[in-house]
Amino acid sequence: MEELNIQASTHAYSIVIGEGIRNQITDYFTNSYSSIWVITDENVAKLYLGDVLETLSDFHAHHTILPAGEQTKSIDYYNQLMTEAIAYGLDRHSLLIALGGGVIGDLAGFVAATYMRGIDYIQMPTTILAHDSSVGGKVAINHPLGKNLIGSFYAPQGVFYDMETLITLNDREIRSGYAELVKEALISDEAIYRSILTTNLQNLPPSITQEHICSGIQIKAQVVEQDEKENGMRQYLNLGHTLGHALEAHLGYGSIAHGEAVAIGLLFALHVSESVFDTTLPFLQLKQWLETNHYPLHSLTGDQQTILAKMKNDKKNKQHRIQMVLLEQVGKPIIKQMTDEDMLSYLSSFKRKLVNK
Amino acid sequence: MEELNIQASTHAYSIVIGEGIRNQITDYFTNSYSSIWVITDENVAKLYLGDVLETLSDFHAHHTILPAGEQTKSIDYYNQLMTEAIAYGLDRHSLLIALGGGVIGDLAGFVAATYMRGIDYIQMPTTILAHDSSVGGKVAINHPLGKNLIGSFYAPQGVFYDMETLITLNDREIRSGYAELVKEALISDEAIYRSILTTNLQNLPPSITQEHICSGIQIKAQVVEQDEKENGMRQYLNLGHTLGHALEAHLGYGSIAHGEAVAIGLLFALHVSESVFDTTLPFLQLKQWLETNHYPLHSLTGDQQTILAKMKNDKKNKQHRIQMVLLEQVGKPIIKQMTDEDMLSYLSSFKRKLVNK
Ligand SMILES: NC(=O)c1ccc[n+]([C@@H]2O[C@H](COP(=O)([O-])OP(=O)(O)OC[C@H]3O[C@@H](n4cnc5c(N)ncnc54)[C@H](O)[C@@H]3O)[C@@H](O)[C@H]2O)c1
Ligand SMILES: NC(=O)c1ccc[n+]([C@@H]2O[C@H](COP(=O)([O-])OP(=O)(O)OC[C@H]3O[C@@H](n4cnc5c(N)ncnc54)[C@H](O)[C@@H]3O)[C@@H](O)[C@H]2O)c1
Ligand SMILES: [Zn+2]
Ligand SMILES: [Zn+2]
Repeated sequence: MEELNIQASTHAYSIVIGEGIRNQITDYFTNSYSSIWVITDENVAKLYLGDVLETLSDFHAHHTILPAGEQTKSIDYYNQLMTEAIAYGLDRHSLLIALGGGVIGDLAGFVAATYMRGIDYIQMPTTILAHDSSVGGKVAINHPLGKNLIGSFYAPQGVFYDMETLITLNDREIRSGYAELVKEALISDEAIYRSILTTNLQNLPPSITQEHICSGIQIKAQVVEQDEKENGMRQYLNLGHTLGHALEAHLGYGSIAHGEAVAIGLLFALHVSESVFDTTLPFLQLKQWLETNHYPLHSLTGDQQTILAKMKNDKKNKQHRIQMVLLEQVGKPIIKQMTDEDMLSYLSSFKRKLVNK
Repeated sequence: MEELNIQASTHAYSIVIGEGIRNQITDYFTNSYSSIWVITDENVAKLYLGDVLETLSDFHAHHTILPAGEQTKSIDYYNQLMTEAIAYGLDRHSLLIALGGGVIGDLAGFVAATYMRGIDYIQMPTTILAHDSSVGGKVAINHPLGKNLIGSFYAPQGVFYDMETLITLNDREIRSGYAELVKEALISDEAIYRSILTTNLQNLPPSITQEHICSGIQIKAQVVEQDEKENGMRQYLNLGHTLGHALEAHLGYGSIAHGEAVAIGLLFALHVSESVFDTTLPFLQLKQWLETNHYPLHSLTGDQQTILAKMKNDKKNKQHRIQMVLLEQVGKPIIKQMTDEDMLSYLSSFKRKLVNK
């Protein structure tokens, strides 16, 4: 069991990581609650909702099971959840629990942030990727024209991360989550980066995963404590996301896992960085690791103009110019404003480099 | 010209009150902006949008004109505004201006709070009532099952209040706004309360209105500085609102002005307070003033059970028990938890007292 503390601008909260935490969450409640509402998706419900509801048996607990997948992070489900909250009679002293991956965490977190102007909530991440989404208080839903365009900064009361739940993840979700761990390592820590690149995702000892997740969370926690509202260094966490988000939008949300798209974006960021800083970065090594672990590198389809247009919808842009996170070296991120011409040319040289053996 | 400063938890901002402010707002901008987006309603657009856009002629300014009325504070218009924001290419460095009454302020404020996790916005109130809604950072939209159930705390970058715009308000809106001024006076200041009750709303010198508005804002500002998130004394500002909100929901949003409903709620609060504290409050005097000024006191229709059910949807309730703001005396508010039986009996005795001459 590991415990980390985060100081958000509104309050401090703990992140508890270990095996079987789902059966002990009530030990960590910091307030008394009039009622509890667990939001989860259909896959997670089958596996872990029963355990969680049992743990909550002393409380007045409601639950809602949503379809799994990125499409659920929509204004329609948001609205439906609001209606349910009112129907359940939830008040300002209710607690919401987001049990699931980043989709449930982001959506349920945004419901918590805006139901009656904000109620308490707890993140119970059940995917590797959600080590990232559950920490730092970013919550959001998608708009048909762009991901996460509607949302808030709203810190949870706690993050309870049960490593046992990760056993049921399929390969795609493991890949997806590991891409964000690679990202965190790339922006801050060459040693962890090297440790990840020596693992094979098909054969992962749980203790190693917990180690990687703990480092990832530590990196993320440090960054968001220093820049909660993303005015400065928090932007480094967007490494790989300029192209990643564009690709997700282009292919249709859900047809590629978030982290799979980010993985391609990370490789692109290395490619651009090598050229901008006229340096050598571990592009080939990362490409190889991604291939070995079956990341769908062939998914980068669509002509450059279409992809560029999607990139320009990104929230991080300033005055319609793309802001990209690049690496001067591993552990040394930097933000660069890019011209459209450069982006187009990097995209096409990147595509060529992807198909080269 | 009067200027007040408010310290919100996230930042400080000014409230500027005076004649012709709509032509000078750019003097008060605290940041440089990539673009500006003015949101207003059809009535206000006809009267004042031209002036504001002219003032913004050096900026890249967009505008959106919405239908007037409480129905506009809906998730559908919220969603439509998000789509427009994206279509206009607004980024995190854009400024949103809410030009209008409380409906525009609440809706546009909630858009600002949640577009890309929050962009800067400015309140330009154009109704008397909006002296209340524009200060304090509460923003929200309605849900079909209850008012303001979806929202945030999100402070503006400034409030620019042009007294000249109030000249075009009709009687109903003047009544509506004055109800909140009466409320603020009742919870904190007997002298202002007496000053208001000696004015006739049909014949209001602008200088007197400005004075009342400034006192109202001062009272509100003091309260929200001490309790921004409404955990304590900010609840006093809900005096009159338990019944007021229920009545609005019961009659259908928009069929009675917010402040008109609150006025009936204020009278009800005096009625309940007299009985609970076994004391005499200026019930009859307020009733008379409301009658003289044509407040629709006859609108309290519907059987007690229906009204009670609506009251129980209120955000301020705890565990399904109604929390009501009462007055031990003028200037001395207090929160009481009420039983359903008591509420039903107070409602019926209040109705009898309303029809008595
Ligand atoms: N808020 C943030 O800071 C932040 C950061 C990164 C990503 N995100 C968001 O996170 C989302 C992606 O998160 P995700 O990858 O966890 O997606 P997800 O929530 O859709 O989960 C992926 C799939 O795994 C299933 N699943 C979840 N837990 C499982 C378990 N223990 N066993 C078996 N199956 C399980 C889910 O049902 C789903 O089908 C995206 O919407 C992204 O925008 C947010
Ligand atoms: N956020 C808060 O703290 C808070 C506090 C109190 C009330 N409110 C909200 O405020 C809303 C009511 O505000 P409102 O009464 O200003 O309603 P409103 O915005 O609907 O304005 C009332 C009417 O006056 C018109 N109008 C506005 N300015 C005008 C002008 N200068 N001249 C002529 N006509 C003008 C509008 O078009 C509208 O028809 C409610 O939704 C209520 O919930 C919010
Ligand atoms: Zn991500
Ligand atoms: Zn009000």
